[in-house]
Amino acid sequence: MEKSPLGAAAVKKSDLTQRKSVGARKPSVVSAGALAVAIMSASAAAAAGAEMSATDTAQVATTQVMANTSPRSATSSANQVLVERRTPSYWRVTFNNPPFNIFGPETIPQLDTVVTAIENDPNLRVVVFDSAVPGFFLTHYDFVPPLSDSTGLPSGPTGLHPLPDMLVRLSRAPVVSISLIRGRATGVGSELALASDMRFASREKAILSQWEVGAALVPGGGPMARLPRLMGRGRALEILLSADDIDGDLAERYGYVNRSLPDDQLDGFVNALAMRISTFDGKAIADTKRLVDFASLPSDPEIAAGWDAFITSVQRPEAQAKITQLMKLGLQTNGEIERKLGHYTETLTQD
Amino acid sequence: MEKSPLGAAAVKKSDLTQRKSVGARKPSVVSAGALAVAIMSASAAAAAGAEMSATDTAQVATTQVMANTSPRSATSSANQVLVERRTPSYWRVTFNNPPFNIFGPETIPQLDTVVTAIENDPNLRVVVFDSAVPGFFLTHYDFVPPLSDSTGLPSGPTGLHPLPDMLVRLSRAPVVSISLIRGRATGVGSELALASDMRFASREKAILSQWEVGAALVPGGGPMARLPRLMGRGRALEILLSADDIDGDLAERYGYVNRSLPDDQLDGFVNALAMRISTFDGKAIADTKRLVDFASLPSDPEIAAGWDAFITSVQRPEAQAKITQLMKLGLQTNGEIERKLGHYTETLTQD
Amino acid sequence: MEKSPLGAAAVKKSDLTQRKSVGARKPSVVSAGALAVAIMSASAAAAAGAEMSATDTAQVATTQVMANTSPRSATSSANQVLVERRTPSYWRVTFNNPPFNIFGPETIPQLDTVVTAIENDPNLRVVVFDSAVPGFFLTHYDFVPPLSDSTGLPSGPTGLHPLPDMLVRLSRAPVVSISLIRGRATGVGSELALASDMRFASREKAILSQWEVGAALVPGGGPMARLPRLMGRGRALEILLSADDIDGDLAERYGYVNRSLPDDQLDGFVNALAMRISTFDGKAIADTKRLVDFASLPSDPEIAAGWDAFITSVQRPEAQAKITQLMKLGLQTNGEIERKLGHYTETLTQD
Repeated sequence: MEKSPLGAAAVKKSDLTQRKSVGARKPSVVSAGALAVAIMSASAAAAAGAEMSATDTAQVATTQVMANTSPRSATSSANQVLVERRTPSYWRVTFNNPPFNIFGPETIPQLDTVVTAIENDPNLRVVVFDSAVPGFFLTHYDFVPPLSDSTGLPSGPTGLHPLPDMLVRLSRAPVVSISLIRGRATGVGSELALASDMRFASREKAILSQWEVGAALVPGGGPMARLPRLMGRGRALEILLSADDIDGDLAERYGYVNRSLPDDQLDGFVNALAMRISTFDGKAIADTKRLVDFASLPSDPEIAAGWDAFITSVQRPEAQAKITQLMKLGLQTNGEIERKLGHYTETLTQD
Repeated sequence: MEKSPLGAAAVKKSDLTQRKSVGARKPSVVSAGALAVAIMSASAAAAAGAEMSATDTAQVATTQVMANTSPRSATSSANQVLVERRTPSYWRVTFNNPPFNIFGPETIPQLDTVVTAIENDPNLRVVVFDSAVPGFFLTHYDFVPPLSDSTGLPSGPTGLHPLPDMLVRLSRAPVVSISLIRGRATGVGSELALASDMRFASREKAILSQWEVGAALVPGGGPMARLPRLMGRGRALEILLSADDIDGDLAERYGYVNRSLPDDQLDGFVNALAMRISTFDGKAIADTKRLVDFASLPSDPEIAAGWDAFITSVQRPEAQAKITQLMKLGLQTNGEIERKLGHYTETLTQD
Repeated sequence: MEKSPLGAAAVKKSDLTQRKSVGARKPSVVSAGALAVAIMSASAAAAAGAEMSATDTAQVATTQVMANTSPRSATSSANQVLVERRTPSYWRVTFNNPPFNIFGPETIPQLDTVVTAIENDPNLRVVVFDSAVPGFFLTHYDFVPPLSDSTGLPSGPTGLHPLPDMLVRLSRAPVVSISLIRGRATGVGSELALASDMRFASREKAILSQWEVGAALVPGGGPMARLPRLMGRGRALEILLSADDIDGDLAERYGYVNRSLPDDQLDGFVNALAMRISTFDGKAIADTKRLVDFASLPSDPEIAAGWDAFITSVQRPEAQAKITQLMKLGLQTNGEIERKLGHYTETLTQD
C-alpha cells in the first residue's frame, strides 16, 4: 500500500459512515500509513524560536499550564494550548506549537480540555485566544499523521467529530470568546476564529484564509455554514472559492473580523474589551448570548455535513496529489510556503 | 417589602406566565412599590431646556399633536410623541420627553396610538422618527415607576407585550419607516431604530448602544433577534456583550445604521429620501416590503423570548444592585451619566 | 382593447394561476397588443455604436457565438448573449444588445442556452459575465413586447418562469459565476448580478439599482429574497424602496458588490481571480458551493412569490401610467433617461 498524507487510502467507507451516526463515541479502528515527512526540521525550529520576541516568551512563561491535565493527554505531545488565568473571570488561551502553529490530531484533546473548562467554570466571563508563535495565529490541519489519527477519535458530547464538536461548543458556551488574530489564521485557525464570538485582527500582521479549495479539499470546520451568515453569500463564496489570503483591512471590510486595528493598538484594545466584559454579570451575558445563538448559529447537522465533506475530499486522488506537491514544496517545513500559502496553491498542477 | 427600581420583588411568577399567553389582553393586577427618585431635578430640567436650540423649538411648535387622542391617554402624562404631517404621504414623529428622552410605561400608549395611525392611514407612505431633545434620540426604559406599570399593560394585537408589539407592527406596517438618529439611541431608542426600515445617523452626534448587559439586564425590545440578522453574529455580540457606546461612523461600518452622514447634511439627506419615497405607489411599496419581511424578520415568538428574558433579568438582585448604583450616580437625573452611560456601567461593582 | 406596455390588460388571472403550478411547462396562450414604440431609433443606435471602443469591439469579435444554437432560438432576434471560451475551464459571457442592454423576452432563451451549457460542461470552473455595451452592464425588462411574450414562455426545469428559473439555476450551478459590472446594472441586470456567486464593480462607471418601485412595480427577479440575505434588512429596504441609483463605492459599503475597484484595475483583477479559480478542482468547488447554498440561498417558492408579485404589479393601472410616462420621456430610446433612471422616476406624477 502506498503511503500518503493522512493515509487516505486505508480508510474504509464503512468507517466513515459509522462515525457519522450521532452519539457514537466508540473510536473506529483504522490502520493507515503515514507520509514519511518530519513535522519540522531542526533548523526550521531553531529559526522559529529565534523569531519569538522576548515579550512573547515572557508572556508564555507566566501562563499556567492546564491543558495537559486531561485523561486524553496520554496521546498528546508537548503542550500546544496554554491557559493563563489573568483574573478568575478573564482567561487567555495561547496557541504555542512552533514554528507554524499547525493543528494536528494531538492538539484536539488539548483544546477539548480547555473548551470543557471554559464551559464549566462558574466565574469565567471572557476568554481571549491568541498565539505565542510569531507570524502564525493558528493554521491548517497537520498532514503528516495518518488519517485514522483524526477519524479514530471518539465523537464529542454533541455527537460530532471532536474538532467541529469543540467549535460548536465554544460558540454555545455561556462565556464570551474573542480571537486576537496576529499572523496567519488559515484552515482550523480561521475556523476557530469564526467559532469565537468576536474577532479582532492586526491591520499589518493578520492573514486570514480558507485555503482548502486550492488544494482540492473542502473545508471541514464549519466555514461554509458560518461565513455566509457573517458577511453574506457573495463575499463568503469569494473567500472559500478563491481560497486566497485576506489581510486585516479587507477582513474588516468583508466582516470576516469585527475590526482590524493597528498592530500596536490591538493588544490594548482587546485587553480593555475583555476586562470590561469580565466585570459584567454572567447570567445576563449567558441569557443574551443564548438568544443571539438562536438567531445566528447553524445547526449541528449542517456542521456535520461540512466535516463529512472534508473527510471525503481529503481521500480523493486530486487532493492527495495537491497535498503531496505542497509537501514537496515545503508545506509544514518551509516558512516561505506557510507564509504565502495562497500564492503557492496557485502554482500547483492538476493531477 | 423593600422598595426597588421597577418594583421587581412584587412581581409574581404566575403573573409573568399569564402575560406570556398569546392573545391575553387583560392587564395583570400587580402592586409594587416605586423607588423614591424624582425623574429629574428642577435644575437639570432647566439646563436641558437651555440646550434646546431655537430651531428645534420652532420645529416642535409647528407639529400637530395627535398622540394624545388615544383612549389610553388618560394614563399618559405630557405628550412625548409629536406627529407632524408634512404632507398626506409623509409624516414626522418626534420624541419630546426632555431632558433625556427616557421611555417609560406612560410613553407606550402614546407611541401605540401613533403606530396604529401609521398602520391605518391610506395616504401615508413614509414616516421619519426624530427627536426634539438635544443630545438624545430616545433612550433607556424608565426605572422609576414600579414594574407593574409596565407588566400590567394589556397585550397588543400580536399578543406580545405592547412595547415589543409596537415594534414588530412598525416593521410590518405597509409604510416605510426611517430613524434619523442625532444624539443617544440607547435601549428602547436603539430598539425602535432597529425596528424601523432604515436608519441614518449623525456622524458627529449619534451614539447607539444596547447598554443593558452592563447593568446585568437582558435587552427586551428585540436586538438579539435583529442585530445578528443585520450585521452578522460577531458584531452583534460585540454590541450586546460589550454593551458600550458606538459612534456614527462605527455604526455605519458595522451596518448598525444604513449610513452615517455629516451632521449638517443629515436632515437634508433624510428629508430628500423621504420626499422621494412619498411620491411612490403605496401598493408597490407594501408588496415589496412584505417579501423583504419574509426574508428578514424574526418571528414573534423569538421577540417574545427576548422580552421575557428582560422581565426576568430586571427582577434579579444583580440587576437591582447595578440599577441602584446607577441611580445613585445620577441615572435619569444627571446628564453626565446619561451621556456617558457606556463608561459608567464599567465603574459599577458586582453585588 | 387599449394597447399598453406589456399588454397587461389582456392577461387573464386564470393564466397567471396556471403558470404558478410547479412543473407546468405548457405555455399559456395569451394574445395582447404591444405599445407602438420602436426599441431604438436609428440615430440612437448609431450613437451607441460610436461609443463602443476599439478594445470592446475587438473583444467581442473574438468570441465564439453559441447562444443561438437553442431550439428556442427561432423566437430570438440577433445574438444578445455572446460566449467566449478563454480556456476550457474559464468562459466569458458578454451581453451585447446595444444601445442599452435591455433584457426582453427574446433574450430569455438565449441566456437559458448559456446557463444550460454552464450547468453541463464538465471542464468549466468559472464564468465571468460582462458587457460589450458602453455604459450598460444589463438593464431593465423590455416594455415594448406584449406581456404574453413573457408570460407565455414555458416554465424552466425548476417549475419557475424561465427568467427566475435561469437565475436560481445559475446560483446552484457547480461552476463559479462572477459579474463584472461596468455601467448600469438595473432591474434584470442587478438581479443577474445578485444571482451570480460574486460581483465586482467599477468604482467610476458602475451604477446598480432596483428601480421598479419608482415605476409602481414590484421587482420580479429575486432581489427581495437576495438583498436582505446579502446586506441585512435596512440597506436592502433602502435599495428597494428608494429605488435609486447606487454607485460603485456605496455598493461596496452596502455589500451589494464584493468590492468596487478603480475602473482601470477592474478587468485585470477579475481576470486574475477567474484564472486562479479555473485551475482548482471542480469537485472541491462544487461541494463547497453546495454547502454555502444550503446556508444562504432562498427557496424556489420564495423566488416564485416575487415573480408573481411583479406580474401582478405590471398589470396595475398605476404601473401602466408610470411606464407610459417614462416611455414618453424616452425610456428605451433616449440615453439620458436610461442613464439617469433613478432621477427620472422621481419626476413622474401619480395616476
